[in-house]
Amino acid sequence: MTGSFGNADREGERLAWVALGLLVEPGNRDLGILVRQVGVVEALHRLLAGKATKQLVTATATRRGAADPYETAERALAEADRLGVRLVTPVDEEYPPQLEDLVTISEDVADPVRRNTFPPHCLWVRGGPALVEACEQSVAIVGSRASTSYGEHVGRDFAFGLAERGWTVVSGGAFGIDNAAHRGALAASGRTIAVLACGIDRPYPQSHAGLFDVIARTGLVVSEWPPGADPHRHRFLIRNRVIAAATVGTVMIEANARSGARFTLNRARRLNRLFLAVPGPITSAASVGCHEAVRDGATLVATVPHIIDAVGRLGDDLAPAARATPRARDSLTPLQARVLDGVRPRKPLTAAEIAAAVGVSARDARRVLPALTLAGFVVQVGGTYRLARSPSHEP
Amino acid sequence: MTGSFGNADREGERLAWVALGLLVEPGNRDLGILVRQVGVVEALHRLLAGKATKQLVTATATRRGAADPYETAERALAEADRLGVRLVTPVDEEYPPQLEDLVTISEDVADPVRRNTFPPHCLWVRGGPALVEACEQSVAIVGSRASTSYGEHVGRDFAFGLAERGWTVVSGGAFGIDNAAHRGALAASGRTIAVLACGIDRPYPQSHAGLFDVIARTGLVVSEWPPGADPHRHRFLIRNRVIAAATVGTVMIEANARSGARFTLNRARRLNRLFLAVPGPITSAASVGCHEAVRDGATLVATVPHIIDAVGRLGDDLAPAARATPRARDSLTPLQARVLDGVRPRKPLTAAEIAAAVGVSARDARRVLPALTLAGFVVQVGGTYRLARSPSHEP
Repeated sequence: MTGSFGNADREGERLAWVALGLLVEPGNRDLGILVRQVGVVEALHRLLAGKATKQLVTATATRRGAADPYETAERALAEADRLGVRLVTPVDEEYPPQLEDLVTISEDVADPVRRNTFPPHCLWVRGGPALVEACEQSVAIVGSRASTSYGEHVGRDFAFGLAERGWTVVSGGAFGIDNAAHRGALAASGRTIAVLACGIDRPYPQSHAGLFDVIARTGLVVSEWPPGADPHRHRFLIRNRVIAAATVGTVMIEANARSGARFTLNRARRLNRLFLAVPGPITSAASVGCHEAVRDGATLVATVPHIIDAVGRLGDDLAPAARATPRARDSLTPLQARVLDGVRPRKPLTAAEIAAAVGVSARDARRVLPALTLAGFVVQVGGTYRLARSPSHEP
Repeated sequence: MTGSFGNADREGERLAWVALGLLVEPGNRDLGILVRQVGVVEALHRLLAGKATKQLVTATATRRGAADPYETAERALAEADRLGVRLVTPVDEEYPPQLEDLVTISEDVADPVRRNTFPPHCLWVRGGPALVEACEQSVAIVGSRASTSYGEHVGRDFAFGLAERGWTVVSGGAFGIDNAAHRGALAASGRTIAVLACGIDRPYPQSHAGLFDVIARTGLVVSEWPPGADPHRHRFLIRNRVIAAATVGTVMIEANARSGARFTLNRARRLNRLFLAVPGPITSAASVGCHEAVRDGATLVATVPHIIDAVGRLGDDLAPAARATPRARDSLTPLQARVLDGVRPRKPLTAAEIAAAVGVSARDARRVLPALTLAGFVVQVGGTYRLARSPSHEP
């Protein structure tokens, strides 16, 4: 009985994740905080009742229509199923835990671009490999859509070399450098992931529909937006944070002075990922952004071994060792340390489950988990907890 | 009487500098130290008598012939005079004091390239401007002889832009990037200096004879070697240290993996000068050295404003402020501090002259000057002293 009740509960949560995704654009800080505080089902309930921050209520006003959000979510899931697209939410094993780092770069400011960088709630995924595994050893290759033949040559070449060495090449599925990166990885019979800014059934650019089909045969096509979603302009910026966060580093090949690729590279930098840039002729406007990035601190890479040299150091450990604060755990109370021992790195557990695992009362666990969360050891996901991958967490 | 004796003395010193230059290749560490210890005339005397380090005696064995070295030096000076070439030695006002920094990068090792980086003793100069003034606001542009049209375009463009803004462009007079740099500065009606690795009357490459004539009309052609000297291969490496030391920074445009230009850039770095490199296509072998330099810490520059931005900070002060040790002077004894007050930044003075200037006994001045020299406040030039421009000297 408890089992089937748990499954129904779980199914309700999945529908709530989807419903929230239909109501609010991905990355929303206020929603992310609300879900962490009260769980996904209650967050949806409050949002529909208008009991959330004014910013969040206002942002979703036009989308809170007459239709039952659970029914809408069910239809989205059914449609995805029909398309061979599965849903991955933060509580699923397939969810890449490094995306949680996105919490660290969200700022409590008015600017929505700097504010709304929270981790994805929904990842719609098409393709065989488990997303979490495909991302484990992955590098992003980004750059201008308006690329030159030089940039495309380099993009293909670098993606080929990385894929050949077992690295997954992540890019945005766009024209230009993205296209070259995906094709280079495919040419090496390697794995590549296209992270789209629209529904997977609405390939953008349309002429890449065939490319995405090929990618999905061995790699993955991923989107935060459900089937049917349009590629709005602002969604590309929202999407870029996922490319930066999923990978150990981002390589930028050709970017003009105002390219969106520079934005992705900057996200990678703020996430403490590697941020690498490829030089080009100073007479080429397409390389201006790369040169400025190097002047701003990006590592210049001119060969595949340069990239391997950089990302290889982080190979098995997405979080750079330098970020750990070795003594943080020592500062915990005995009870806090004991509860923390029960929190698992990947599988989110309820306070009661954690309490049971380490033999303390559920009341004690509930009492110390907020402090552990606040201190950055633990991440709250809905009503559950798992280990954080944050600076203050000692592995 | 004293005056004419002083002039004769001075003339003897000039001949001694020239004679030493004919006996020993420039930059020799042992000779540099000997001259600092005993003065130039006595250093020549000892060398001729075989009373110097074994290394130095051995190195000059084949050149200590039967001819009177003073007579040979006189002939060299007469020949220079006939060619319109003047001699600048370390005691002359026209000698750029920043060359003295070369002492700091000389290492007491067997490798002659790392060992023999001492400042020039002789600079043979052709052209109107005073060398010290022409070098005051100067930038070196160096690069491959085997340049591409891209590199030559950039060399001309950057030299033009720097010359236009009042900067002297210093280079080595060679084919390729050097040629482009000199011509770019001339095209802007700016000032340029060619530092050769052979006698000024033996232009190398020969086809640049006309270029050097044009340069000497408004700028300078300079060499450490007297008229008639051949452009031996090793002399280019020796020469490069002067290009690096005379300027506030070195810009490298195109260098293959083993280019001599990288050597100059490295000298600039070790001299605490700015070291800048221009990127290019990663598919071009001519840019490999530049990309490696950036990866090793060189500042990437892609525009003239990038260069101005870097060198402009040092505009009026060749020694970066960060190099000063603010409290060093406070550690001196009252007598040391008083004697130091009498040492002048440019004009070398004898211990007696310094003593007279600050009102202490010559004996006291002679007693503390070695300690001030050792501490890096003062530089000994022959039997005279002037302020050092070293890290421990507070301006």
